Amino acid sequence: MTDTVALLTDFGTRDPYVGVMKGVIATIHPTAHVIDVTHGVPPQDVRVGAVYLEAAFSWFPPGTVFVGVVDPGVGSDRAVVGVHLGERLFVGPDNGLVDLVARKHPPVQAVRIEAEAYRMARPSRTFHGRDIMAPAAAHLARGVPLSALGPPVESLCPLQVPDARPDRPSTGGTAGTGDAPETGAVRGVVLYCDHFGNAITNLPGPLARGGGTVAWEGGRAGIRSTYAQVEPGEALALVGSTDRLEVSVRNGNAARALGLAAGDAVVYHPPTGGRETSEPTDRES
Amino acid sequence: MTDTVALLTDFGTRDPYVGVMKGVIATIHPTAHVIDVTHGVPPQDVRVGAVYLEAAFSWFPPGTVFVGVVDPGVGSDRAVVGVHLGERLFVGPDNGLVDLVARKHPPVQAVRIEAEAYRMARPSRTFHGRDIMAPAAAHLARGVPLSALGPPVESLCPLQVPDARPDRPSTGGTAGTGDAPETGAVRGVVLYCDHFGNAITNLPGPLARGGGTVAWEGGRAGIRSTYAQVEPGEALALVGSTDRLEVSVRNGNAARALGLAAGDAVVYHPPTGGRETSEPTDRES
Amino acid sequence: MTDTVALLTDFGTRDPYVGVMKGVIATIHPTAHVIDVTHGVPPQDVRVGAVYLEAAFSWFPPGTVFVGVVDPGVGSDRAVVGVHLGERLFVGPDNGLVDLVARKHPPVQAVRIEAEAYRMARPSRTFHGRDIMAPAAAHLARGVPLSALGPPVESLCPLQVPDARPDRPSTGGTAGTGDAPETGAVRGVVLYCDHFGNAITNLPGPLARGGGTVAWEGGRAGIRSTYAQVEPGEALALVGSTDRLEVSVRNGNAARALGLAAGDAVVYHPPTGGRETSEPTDRES
Repeated sequence: MTDTVALLTDFGTRDPYVGVMKGVIATIHPTAHVIDVTHGVPPQDVRVGAVYLEAAFSWFPPGTVFVGVVDPGVGSDRAVVGVHLGERLFVGPDNGLVDLVARKHPPVQAVRIEAEAYRMARPSRTFHGRDIMAPAAAHLARGVPLSALGPPVESLCPLQVPDARPDRPSTGGTAGTGDAPETGAVRGVVLYCDHFGNAITNLPGPLARGGGTVAWEGGRAGIRSTYAQVEPGEALALVGSTDRLEVSVRNGNAARALGLAAGDAVVYHPPTGGRETSEPTDRES
Repeated sequence: MTDTVALLTDFGTRDPYVGVMKGVIATIHPTAHVIDVTHGVPPQDVRVGAVYLEAAFSWFPPGTVFVGVVDPGVGSDRAVVGVHLGERLFVGPDNGLVDLVARKHPPVQAVRIEAEAYRMARPSRTFHGRDIMAPAAAHLARGVPLSALGPPVESLCPLQVPDARPDRPSTGGTAGTGDAPETGAVRGVVLYCDHFGNAITNLPGPLARGGGTVAWEGGRAGIRSTYAQVEPGEALALVGSTDRLEVSVRNGNAARALGLAAGDAVVYHPPTGGRETSEPTDRES
Repeated sequence: MTDTVALLTDFGTRDPYVGVMKGVIATIHPTAHVIDVTHGVPPQDVRVGAVYLEAAFSWFPPGTVFVGVVDPGVGSDRAVVGVHLGERLFVGPDNGLVDLVARKHPPVQAVRIEAEAYRMARPSRTFHGRDIMAPAAAHLARGVPLSALGPPVESLCPLQVPDARPDRPSTGGTAGTGDAPETGAVRGVVLYCDHFGNAITNLPGPLARGGGTVAWEGGRAGIRSTYAQVEPGEALALVGSTDRLEVSVRNGNAARALGLAAGDAVVYHPPTGGRETSEPTDRES
């Protein structure tokens, strides 16, 4: 166990909400080591929060208590849960936020956080991060056992997130718009675009082993192993730091330059001879 | 006493100014525990800074030294003060920034920070956060008594902030624009809109006890106790985490959807039978 | 030596990249004291990163390990270096990021960071901040000697940054656009505009000792020693906190109000009798 508490929220950094949570933690556990994972999850976007949490989870010290506050249901009857999984703990709303982590690290224990001894006396209806989750995390980091926080829960809310899936050749379609990808193609979506404009997809990194291309509405890019393999300003696809395929522009912003946004469809195509270019095209042909 | 130093500024996080203040604190007091309240106060907006400081103050450990740098008068003859109030300390310009806290926790001691031993040798004219306030806070957190930093000051600069006030029926006005709210109505303003688009007003939370509505130019919303009591996309008013009435849109952004902004007039109306709807209206009638 | 690690990147704060680096550092060195200098360097802008690093460097405790990640060449053959200079250490790409610091504090030791014992087992091609630089910094802060991280390097990559230079009177030019500045004029550029809209130039602060003006395309401003010497809304030039001349608007935003942006040409003019006004003019005459 360490005393590390890691915070991931959609609060942004303009308001004092994050600071207040840290004040609460410092009051309960003065030597806790609080680390910001990010507060830049798009407001109420549980899916992006789940992707960010998964990206960060294993890079923190064993024993870390993660607090995840992306909570469109605050004040409703959704539960606040504490979950022990993969040598670390999660505290947050039971809305799928921890689901991508749980797929890799099956929970060994999960409780509904209810014990009045480990929360603020009269929790507000709008700020459970301050009144329930931060206190719970601080107490857990101090060594309070998870079981003291509330009764066990059997199952956790799953996340609604699209999986990448093998592409099926279309069996017809309007003449002129025929779209029958090669065998081995995999369809996915852009999960989010990061600060640099990289479009992170849900296409698994191992797809890239044999090369190939990633296509989107209006363009495609060859898979490379590093930015330096293309010219500045040129598009490429590569395996990003979370082992997913990303579409990038070397020294540029792919989201802006290529018009990519969260939710856009993307297709991985395996190599088929001389096709691994990065030329934008109006259509795959 | 703890060793906690809490920072609240309008510096943003793009420039290295906040980092430099932390470097100064770490140089003077290597084991200080520095927590960001926020650096997102709108530039030079002392009023919003005061609201944020009040929102955070009591959630930090007793003994915390707050450094508040929202300082349009830097380099003028405005004082830098150190104030002991409510078991905690404040260091910052004497421009009203600490006034909302001081109304709840009357100062027990206040000094003008001048002692050369506790500041940089030749303070710049533009960055007193680095050269005067951060060093003072670090020394206070190390245990230097407030009285060592400078001579006592008798009174602090008040904040220019509108109070919510009971509404008086208008006694005339142009025909067709008559606006004679019910007895019990209270007029206020939107203090600021947060990251989620919630419009935080200066209407006191206890007004909401018996229900009622909050009206603004072009709309009104019923007071609820939680977001889940309205449909997604619907407007509501509720008591926020700082015990003020807020206008929100469930799972949405009230500032954008309703056109609300800091400074907008709002009116609390007590319940008067069947009026607690959230329908936008052109006018209260 | 302290255990301070200071982070300066162009990662922004939206994605979990910075948090992941902190998780890596906490895993290797649980009691390290990590301070954010800034993560707001414009993406891949090594020049601004270098200016920010220089602005922060000397304000941190002796022994601090700075990690600078502004790294457009990630995945290419550019080196990652560790540099000992001025009682502190720098870890980052060898692309000029540390050059402005090195001009003031000549390096006493520099190595190419390659030792496998002090990095992640299989570094990614896109995130050396996480896989190489954060681990190196954490080990250095723990006391591992710089020489253990890799072989010495002879010289470091210089930064491409314009220097301010004395102005030469133009020897001709189109009639009506003659531009023959006085003797003593110095030409420079706007390095960047900060959060408040101050336009920080590369004109050295000591130029301001005798007064004078700073001119730009379409305007000029007198040099003052503090904001309070002009009226709210009025432009001025003054020596900023990093000892460079800045163009500001009192209680306003000079970048917006005056149309200033990074890269814009500026000229310092020494005083020549009654010229130190702040009136915008179409041209110096």
